[in-house]
Amino acid sequence: MDIIRDELAELGEALVLDPLALDELRADKSGHVASAAPLALVEARTIEHVQLALRFASRHGIPVVPRGAGTGLAGGAVGDAGELVVSTRRMDRILEISADDELAVVEPGIINADLNARLAQHGLWWAPDPASKAISTVGGNIATNAGGLLCVKYGVTREAVLALKVVLADGRLISTGHRTVKGVTGLDLTALFIGSEGLLGIVVEATLKLRRVPAGEPVTIGASFGDVADAARAASVIATSSVRPAVMELLDARALEMLRTWFQAQGETVDLPGGAYLLVQTDGADAAREAQELLPIIASLGGVAQLAPDAEAGERLLRIRRSFHPALESRGTVLIEDVAVPRSALPAMFAEIDRISSEFDIPIPTIAHAGDGNLHPNFVLPTRATGSALDVPEHVWEAASELFRAALRLGGTLTGEHGVGLLKKRWLGDEIGDMQLELQRGIKAVFDPQGLLNPGKVL
Amino acid sequence: MDIIRDELAELGEALVLDPLALDELRADKSGHVASAAPLALVEARTIEHVQLALRFASRHGIPVVPRGAGTGLAGGAVGDAGELVVSTRRMDRILEISADDELAVVEPGIINADLNARLAQHGLWWAPDPASKAISTVGGNIATNAGGLLCVKYGVTREAVLALKVVLADGRLISTGHRTVKGVTGLDLTALFIGSEGLLGIVVEATLKLRRVPAGEPVTIGASFGDVADAARAASVIATSSVRPAVMELLDARALEMLRTWFQAQGETVDLPGGAYLLVQTDGADAAREAQELLPIIASLGGVAQLAPDAEAGERLLRIRRSFHPALESRGTVLIEDVAVPRSALPAMFAEIDRISSEFDIPIPTIAHAGDGNLHPNFVLPTRATGSALDVPEHVWEAASELFRAALRLGGTLTGEHGVGLLKKRWLGDEIGDMQLELQRGIKAVFDPQGLLNPGKVL
Repeated sequence: MDIIRDELAELGEALVLDPLALDELRADKSGHVASAAPLALVEARTIEHVQLALRFASRHGIPVVPRGAGTGLAGGAVGDAGELVVSTRRMDRILEISADDELAVVEPGIINADLNARLAQHGLWWAPDPASKAISTVGGNIATNAGGLLCVKYGVTREAVLALKVVLADGRLISTGHRTVKGVTGLDLTALFIGSEGLLGIVVEATLKLRRVPAGEPVTIGASFGDVADAARAASVIATSSVRPAVMELLDARALEMLRTWFQAQGETVDLPGGAYLLVQTDGADAAREAQELLPIIASLGGVAQLAPDAEAGERLLRIRRSFHPALESRGTVLIEDVAVPRSALPAMFAEIDRISSEFDIPIPTIAHAGDGNLHPNFVLPTRATGSALDVPEHVWEAASELFRAALRLGGTLTGEHGVGLLKKRWLGDEIGDMQLELQRGIKAVFDPQGLLNPGKVL
Repeated sequence: MDIIRDELAELGEALVLDPLALDELRADKSGHVASAAPLALVEARTIEHVQLALRFASRHGIPVVPRGAGTGLAGGAVGDAGELVVSTRRMDRILEISADDELAVVEPGIINADLNARLAQHGLWWAPDPASKAISTVGGNIATNAGGLLCVKYGVTREAVLALKVVLADGRLISTGHRTVKGVTGLDLTALFIGSEGLLGIVVEATLKLRRVPAGEPVTIGASFGDVADAARAASVIATSSVRPAVMELLDARALEMLRTWFQAQGETVDLPGGAYLLVQTDGADAAREAQELLPIIASLGGVAQLAPDAEAGERLLRIRRSFHPALESRGTVLIEDVAVPRSALPAMFAEIDRISSEFDIPIPTIAHAGDGNLHPNFVLPTRATGSALDVPEHVWEAASELFRAALRLGGTLTGEHGVGLLKKRWLGDEIGDMQLELQRGIKAVFDPQGLLNPGKVL
């Protein structure tokens, strides 16, 4: 500790040693809590702060955990005993907005929704749209290659980043990528950094590819189905129709049941009949016509559709989906899984979830980004005492393992958008195999030969 | 040679030793011709053929040049003395087309246009659209992260590939990526392979992300302007309007001049007045309305627009642009450059091209994918004798150097979509710097520790 105080003194108030503050770094939103608090926190305000911290850490062989707002769902940003946490949360300035080039240059700590509020003043928009956008940072979105509700139409984070500045493990600063949409000079390090979960370096600046805000108001449809198989089929037919929805979310029977109880407890009456609910939103100049085209498709597959008469009513329908996690959290600690399967395998994956739920006798309320086959099955655990480690009973891990295996069998992946972090590390080899693990570790060693960045996570 | 004949005997007719056939491998479409023919050619029919060839090469330390149709513009696939060329051109089967999951699984040797002809029967389409699509392979498109005319709206190759099978330098086979649109398990090796120009492995299978063919007919506008600055400004205003064109191509005065002469020599009359020509195409259900919206924009910036009354007339307008390279080639050997700048810098880059053209007293006819700031300035050299090395006079290289420096100064890149290969290698360090070069070489060494894949190219 003395060595930290001495050698990092020039960081001033950016160096945080307060035990209460350090204790908070043991957790993120995954439910995982580290066994002990990290050594210290550097709340960087500048690129130089990050470089200073990493030069210090590499000099002394101290492990470093990069962190943004701490909203990760896989334990990728939790600090543990003996580690130095370097947060870029306070580096939250917008350095440039160019409407002509449809790009913005930002520091990594800016909150996704705050950035988009500023961009909206210019008629612009950064498409990555994780459900956490009100609390997660752009840097975190980049570290996990975040997806979200809108990526069925607008792509994931990797498709919305042009260039990066990254501080390497030894404190050196590199710039990757271009201010241009195209550019093929050498290996694509920008793409490699996106989704690398803090293993290769700390992103300290990003040039983001923007879009124009779509014209007009989005139009929203809520549709009730008898069961999830019918709803999944409808999603599949819609996805292959000529209409490309911006949002397509599917809630299963367990999810609806929990929502009904939750809304009732809030004293609200929400009409949620049936065994599955499909929420579809179209946007752009043709939103209304496109929504009209979807109504007969939904009806022909047994759905009862409700077309929101205006944007405000549409927001009320979307609120049903947004209330899902609060509803779960009111019952305990939530372990959110994140499998993805080819879209056509969505009904099969729901059937597998049903089977696993019965076999292990655990309710697994599930919501899916149906347009891209990404499902979030949830386990609700008894709420733990504050600050204690996540207490996941072994049979829940077994059920989760079964889920992952089922997704892989169906041609899918164990994480669509949350990342591997600590929580999914033990299954990574099952998906990518030993040869690829070895290559990935080799790449990691090129960037971080001492193995100091986020040790013990992902690989 | 005996060792090749002996140890690769089981390849049968996939092993090619015919001197005439080997001689052809000294060149691609870049104009570069290697000093001597390679040792041998493996025209792989199967993944096992590729593995066999690479196991053999790594056993004996023989350099390997991966090759597709040989249409590259940077010399990335030319075979030289002592090298083994491994071609995947004959691995051209479509293994699967899934309309439900909007994906296709293909071998790398299939020609882009042939694939799209087959996909069209299912109402599907693979978006990467290099001008070479009638002759270039999907594997080559992946190796260079090919762009093209349509990527202003539909993105580059990296955004249209889900998964790869790759044979590594030592003959091992790995699978990267997913059949799902989302997936974040570990580092993104799929993205790393895309655009890696044969340095990291040989792609032997690709899972491609498809789109539905847009509804309706595309609508085409051709517009004449007084000079290229006005036309570039119009392109910029269109690009930031609410309309997103599928194609936006710009030809400068020199290009038009050559086209006029060429059409005349063909005995054709084509109306091409003015000092610059802008070609814009809209597509999708709203194509006609969108095109109408562009007409007043063009007029307000001094352009004289001609709206094609039907798709056939639109094709005639597009033919003007497609005739550009034949027109150049009729005058000599063409050296095509490929700089890209932020879109707002397009007028400035055209001014730089004008300046360099005057300073070096060389005509530099230029065409631009104006929607994404990608310019192809061309040098026409006296036609060389067949099979002799590209004879680029030093002052042409100097003019090209000036072009690259200008593009970098404007925040751009020295290659937007053709790749580095041999031809741009000497400028790569200027763009990405020594630290990044070192990291890229480190990654290369992880995949290819003996340095056998495409040695002397790119890095």
